[in-house]
Amino acid sequence: MSDAATSAIIPAEGATEPLTLMGAGLVGSLLALYLARHGHSVDMFERRADPRLASGLEGRSINLALSDRGWRALDGVGIGDEVRQVGIPMYGRTMHDQHGQLTHQPYGQENQAIYSVSRAGLNRKLLDLVEAEPGIKLHFNQQCLNVDLRHHTIQLRDVTTAQEQVRPFRRLFGTDGAYSAVRGAMQKTDRYNYSQSYLEYGYKELHIAPGPNGTWQFEKHALHIWPRGQYMMIALPNLDGSFTCTLFFPYEGPHSFAALQTPAQVQAFFEEVFPDAVPFMPELGTDFFSNPTGSLVTVRCFPWAFNDEVLLIGDASHAIVPFYGQGMNAGFEDCSVLNSLLTQYGSDWHAVFQLFQTQRKPDADAMADLAIYNFEEMRDRVADPRFLLQKKIESKISAQYPGQWLPLYSQVTFSHTPYAEALANGRRQEQIMSGLMPYIQKESDYEQNQVQELLREAMSKLHQQI
Amino acid sequence: MSDAATSAIIPAEGATEPLTLMGAGLVGSLLALYLARHGHSVDMFERRADPRLASGLEGRSINLALSDRGWRALDGVGIGDEVRQVGIPMYGRTMHDQHGQLTHQPYGQENQAIYSVSRAGLNRKLLDLVEAEPGIKLHFNQQCLNVDLRHHTIQLRDVTTAQEQVRPFRRLFGTDGAYSAVRGAMQKTDRYNYSQSYLEYGYKELHIAPGPNGTWQFEKHALHIWPRGQYMMIALPNLDGSFTCTLFFPYEGPHSFAALQTPAQVQAFFEEVFPDAVPFMPELGTDFFSNPTGSLVTVRCFPWAFNDEVLLIGDASHAIVPFYGQGMNAGFEDCSVLNSLLTQYGSDWHAVFQLFQTQRKPDADAMADLAIYNFEEMRDRVADPRFLLQKKIESKISAQYPGQWLPLYSQVTFSHTPYAEALANGRRQEQIMSGLMPYIQKESDYEQNQVQELLREAMSKLHQQI
Repeated sequence: MSDAATSAIIPAEGATEPLTLMGAGLVGSLLALYLARHGHSVDMFERRADPRLASGLEGRSINLALSDRGWRALDGVGIGDEVRQVGIPMYGRTMHDQHGQLTHQPYGQENQAIYSVSRAGLNRKLLDLVEAEPGIKLHFNQQCLNVDLRHHTIQLRDVTTAQEQVRPFRRLFGTDGAYSAVRGAMQKTDRYNYSQSYLEYGYKELHIAPGPNGTWQFEKHALHIWPRGQYMMIALPNLDGSFTCTLFFPYEGPHSFAALQTPAQVQAFFEEVFPDAVPFMPELGTDFFSNPTGSLVTVRCFPWAFNDEVLLIGDASHAIVPFYGQGMNAGFEDCSVLNSLLTQYGSDWHAVFQLFQTQRKPDADAMADLAIYNFEEMRDRVADPRFLLQKKIESKISAQYPGQWLPLYSQVTFSHTPYAEALANGRRQEQIMSGLMPYIQKESDYEQNQVQELLREAMSKLHQQI
Repeated sequence: MSDAATSAIIPAEGATEPLTLMGAGLVGSLLALYLARHGHSVDMFERRADPRLASGLEGRSINLALSDRGWRALDGVGIGDEVRQVGIPMYGRTMHDQHGQLTHQPYGQENQAIYSVSRAGLNRKLLDLVEAEPGIKLHFNQQCLNVDLRHHTIQLRDVTTAQEQVRPFRRLFGTDGAYSAVRGAMQKTDRYNYSQSYLEYGYKELHIAPGPNGTWQFEKHALHIWPRGQYMMIALPNLDGSFTCTLFFPYEGPHSFAALQTPAQVQAFFEEVFPDAVPFMPELGTDFFSNPTGSLVTVRCFPWAFNDEVLLIGDASHAIVPFYGQGMNAGFEDCSVLNSLLTQYGSDWHAVFQLFQTQRKPDADAMADLAIYNFEEMRDRVADPRFLLQKKIESKISAQYPGQWLPLYSQVTFSHTPYAEALANGRRQEQIMSGLMPYIQKESDYEQNQVQELLREAMSKLHQQI
């Protein structure tokens, strides 16, 4: 058995009993598709209304940046190409300094990009596919009030009619996000390890309007960053020529949400610190006060499985902050990993659940750490010429020692190396770079004998460690 | 205003409105006494029955070891001396090796001791005092079902009659322990940081019977440890000649609760690893299977205050593992700190709550780390002759440099140095010791010139750091 298509035709024992999914967001929808390909029927419940019917209000929408792990999971159900057509490749970061001066840093090799996609659009696309599967039943407006782990029931409330029902489940997947109700029930079981940890920063979604004839006011194929040390703004391109901006900003302090109380204060502040962006933000004052301030949480928990009966997937088990662009990608990779295990172990759910959580937990923890780490990099270090010089040197090392040095960002974004392994590799690389950089003042110093000698020595040790 | 007695006679603004306390355990009872001394009336609710009426079953009873922080808090309400009369001073640790050989390690200077006291006895004593205060009303058998932070109400259920009531509160203190219902409500507020983390060890209470005529089978004035690397047993003396033992043991693995399934297996295992104790444990097989296996949780959260309306105190805000004997002492110290703030700020509850949590949170975090760290020391390092040699050397340093080197254990146990400061000092000391110990093979090596020279240098730097 080496692929899902083959295993799907095995009439899996127990496959006749429908699986229950709580949460029809991005990860829930994709997971349902994978489960259906394995021959399972699925009952799906979602608290919100069908987003394909709702007009206008899209809910939460930090821009999504799809990268290799996400693409592999979408390709696995055959929709990668279709999504790629509405994604905008971003080949690097463009940093805007306080005078509007730009600096560019490529994300990887030429042609390597992360893709700006609409969260709402992707969700609708996935739901269309889910609905086309005869084995999947979708139920919207169903709020999960309670999960009874002992009696295997979920209590649901129809938010349109206020009617409640209790439904039995045989096997339940919690894909209900960072504030998962399914996890809430598991948290009450004995010896449950759990943490929720908030940054002292919130985020606010803002908007850069399209230019004349739907053109882009800034480079279209880049992720834009206005790094300001203790805070930052970023912008990702949309198809209509606009950019969706996100301001990451302290809740309290001299420059903070608490300190900006009027549209005039907001305008003055933006003109001072984001002078090249503000002319293209005509709705700034309105957006700032009508859009909600979002909080930034990291959730860690374990176990993810309750016997062979319940499994948490995606944000429900490992919500992370958005600074590495890996939240959705990590959730999608969960689906790939689960797909492989289902291919290998069929309906031995005990094995599937146990192996899934054992294999995946260290990677989720590493990704959570990386995401927090990258916040500092984006809001602060990318504005430092020494940092950018180091990145150029790393790229030279990568070219000189092919296959032996893949920069950390590339490992996370353009490879399928497990996150924990990428983090460990990255730490070793950082150690080498801090030994090397004192000898490097400009790019050409890389060719100096002393630097090359130090590097050769370090690389031989690096090799031994791996 | 420099002491509680003085401030208590100020008719504090708002003091006419009773304060609400949820939880009448050790910390709740002591807190109520302090609040009453400040002129407040208090309504206290406790889920359990009045422990002074219940006979026999005492509930949870990991032995308590009272040390200086606890004594100061008890002295503050004038009951230190009375409790001291029923406490048994333990002047050091006695380690039992696998052949029954004993080693002794003093806890501090001569006459410095921690005190073995009965948790149940101490609780009853505090409740007697609480009941004698005309301003305090005690309500037992009241389970807190819900706290409504917005409407300032608590929903209570009388566990004897099943009747429910909703009561308003103006100011609520959550002294309801590691599984606090009050904290449960705060956890649902925006941006609430919370973690619960379990060791992969459980504990089991066991019993060493008294010898002839109520004598003690082992040294009475010591805390006994059977350190076995990955697990350990400890024993604390009781007044009747018995010892209360606690086995700290992995849940899973070759030597674990999971591996011991029959009384015969337990007996054989104990005879092998605790040979000198087992002859005095006639009820071992019964105790092992009838006593519950307790879990070991560390709870961290923040904030502890909700506006100036709710405050968490003791285990509710910082439950720790029991290996430093500081759980109750830290909770009692909370009462001392709050008492000082009440003396200073009177009924400015906003100031009191904010200063309390800001001041106390780093200390609670440090104590949580120390408690986990000490588990390793107790179950493993105390069996290592090098470790014991190092402790002897530290004691020599302490004598040679009076006032400049107080061992970490003494700072935590026999001082009122804030825990966070003690931890930082301890880390600096440990660094010095790891530079020194390679030159020391036996106690007398301490006098060597090289060692003294190194020490002098280290101490001059230590001094600068402080």
